[in-house]
Amino acid sequence: GPAWRRAWRMAASAVPAARPDPRGRPGLRAALAEHMRRSRGVSCTPDAVVVTRGIGNGLDLLAATVLRPGDRVGVEDPGWARARTALLARGMTPVPCPVDEHGLVVDALPADLRMVYTTPSHQYPLGGVLPVPRRQALLAWARRAGALVVEDDYDGEFRYDVAPLPALFDLDPETVVHLGTTSKILSSDVGVGWLVARPELAAAVARRRVDLADRTAAVSQEAVRLLLERGDLVRHVRRMRAEYARRRAVVTEELAGLPLVGDTAGLHLVVSLPPGRAERVAAEAARHGVLLDDLERHHAGPVRFSGLVIGYGAVAGRAELRAACALVRRLVADELLADDPAADAERAAGEPAVA
Amino acid sequence: GPAWRRAWRMAASAVPAARPDPRGRPGLRAALAEHMRRSRGVSCTPDAVVVTRGIGNGLDLLAATVLRPGDRVGVEDPGWARARTALLARGMTPVPCPVDEHGLVVDALPADLRMVYTTPSHQYPLGGVLPVPRRQALLAWARRAGALVVEDDYDGEFRYDVAPLPALFDLDPETVVHLGTTSKILSSDVGVGWLVARPELAAAVARRRVDLADRTAAVSQEAVRLLLERGDLVRHVRRMRAEYARRRAVVTEELAGLPLVGDTAGLHLVVSLPPGRAERVAAEAARHGVLLDDLERHHAGPVRFSGLVIGYGAVAGRAELRAACALVRRLVADELLADDPAADAERAAGEPAVA
Repeated sequence: GPAWRRAWRMAASAVPAARPDPRGRPGLRAALAEHMRRSRGVSCTPDAVVVTRGIGNGLDLLAATVLRPGDRVGVEDPGWARARTALLARGMTPVPCPVDEHGLVVDALPADLRMVYTTPSHQYPLGGVLPVPRRQALLAWARRAGALVVEDDYDGEFRYDVAPLPALFDLDPETVVHLGTTSKILSSDVGVGWLVARPELAAAVARRRVDLADRTAAVSQEAVRLLLERGDLVRHVRRMRAEYARRRAVVTEELAGLPLVGDTAGLHLVVSLPPGRAERVAAEAARHGVLLDDLERHHAGPVRFSGLVIGYGAVAGRAELRAACALVRRLVADELLADDPAADAERAAGEPAVA
Repeated sequence: GPAWRRAWRMAASAVPAARPDPRGRPGLRAALAEHMRRSRGVSCTPDAVVVTRGIGNGLDLLAATVLRPGDRVGVEDPGWARARTALLARGMTPVPCPVDEHGLVVDALPADLRMVYTTPSHQYPLGGVLPVPRRQALLAWARRAGALVVEDDYDGEFRYDVAPLPALFDLDPETVVHLGTTSKILSSDVGVGWLVARPELAAAVARRRVDLADRTAAVSQEAVRLLLERGDLVRHVRRMRAEYARRRAVVTEELAGLPLVGDTAGLHLVVSLPPGRAERVAAEAARHGVLLDDLERHHAGPVRFSGLVIGYGAVAGRAELRAACALVRRLVADELLADDPAADAERAAGEPAVA
């Protein structure tokens, strides 16, 4: 939008720092601390904030700071595959931990993890919002195990029915490291995120970052600071939240009757299907220009959930979304009918004989 | 400068890609291939180019793509410490390899390295330009050893007496991966660099990058593309080259008679000092607002070279540089006199008696 372009134009005049602060530019860290307080109810000071390039960068920096090669790190299964591959690439041992429709199954966490990575605001990809009792159980487990909890809050701004639950970080800032990003609220192309941790840990991450020659582009930092300070980002999120709520309503309306999974939050939901069916539906939809995601490929271990992941964040508008959902509905019906012998016979009877 | 701000303003209107290409934006890759040809005599196609965030990012992506934990990687000693720490953080075993005033000592390379990281255009920090016979020997060694050579060309644009030597990559694109950056020609805050490799390897790096959730900010890519396509970057480099040549002349003039090390290239040179002296001089200079670097701290193994690294890239202007050099000259003289017993006696004789 125009606010975005204006922020970039102004940011272009930013004076580059001779010795950039590895924690990020002070003005942005202050603006982010304030944003965290207002938008997510998190109280933190600017010295708890490290400006990153996004969730993956934050997780990678944290792992490189506090873990040793071979350390066991819990990752959600099904879950965000990049978390697992990024940890593997630092020599860690990712341990797939089961999730259900409410999010991470805390009772199933092994005791020997040094860290667990989780998406409590809106589990990716199943879509559960972690209930309060599980949040408390997770923190109790982490304190017993001496493990860190990494809270990936990638779309925490988007909940439509009620106010978002407070961030895990606010419940126990000693045990939790919070990761946020502009990737969903602006664009994954912006390349600005944040890590919030107790100040000593934030400082350690920043020092480690220097070793890794890792940083966030200054102009991007300035643009995000301007958007935050002028209130543009909050207004933008408010508009998006209203729009995404309407889009979500379109999806649930058009797909009514199909088994939908996922809480009223975020930018995607799941249509459950019997195992092995989603891939064909997604391939057929792609031929019609509709991109769907196969839930099975988000598993690290054996497949436990099958279906389609339907994202409504990137689609052009509600009319396009409605048409895409109608297509999905038809393709899913065709696919499910295909293994119904009665339906097969019926269709065969209606088919022209081979000439 | 104004071209820079204009490029950013225009880049702000860039349309973010729905599915960003992990190799970087196609327009920038084409512009970089052309830039490599003109400025460094490297012939490459856009599919040999991956847009990175800088040298460290390029080295890290390459290591994460082609190496396995524990692999032995040669790094220059003294050398750029971040290369060593970044490799360590991927579980590799960095092997310090000696350099002399001409650059990497190729004869001393062990045969069991899987990769060697080097700065042939202007060794960091000693300042040697790797002579042609050593370049040929390095490539012959690499082919025998089955090792990759990583050519860090961080300030390859800046040579003042003669034309730069051709890049190693152009001599053997199968064996060499070339890393470039805007960090010295624009600012380390821009966060755009490039990796040039044979196309299959470039494609593998880009695929690996997706696993690591790693990317370069789109607006930064657009700004650099505009600067390249409009010729602004080449003009800027030409102006900087003239300015840095004058600055270098100021330094060699003001420090005439001191043992200077480093070829007529780059943005820094070295004043040799006896072991253990540079730290005190640097501390004293810092009290006068002049930042110098101690050569000893760039060693990974035992210290073999001692002195001061004097950078003239970041200083405000030639007058400031001249004053700083005069200060360095005085502090070095004081430091060297301090261990001359005759000078001590002389000074003692001239000192007032304690009252």
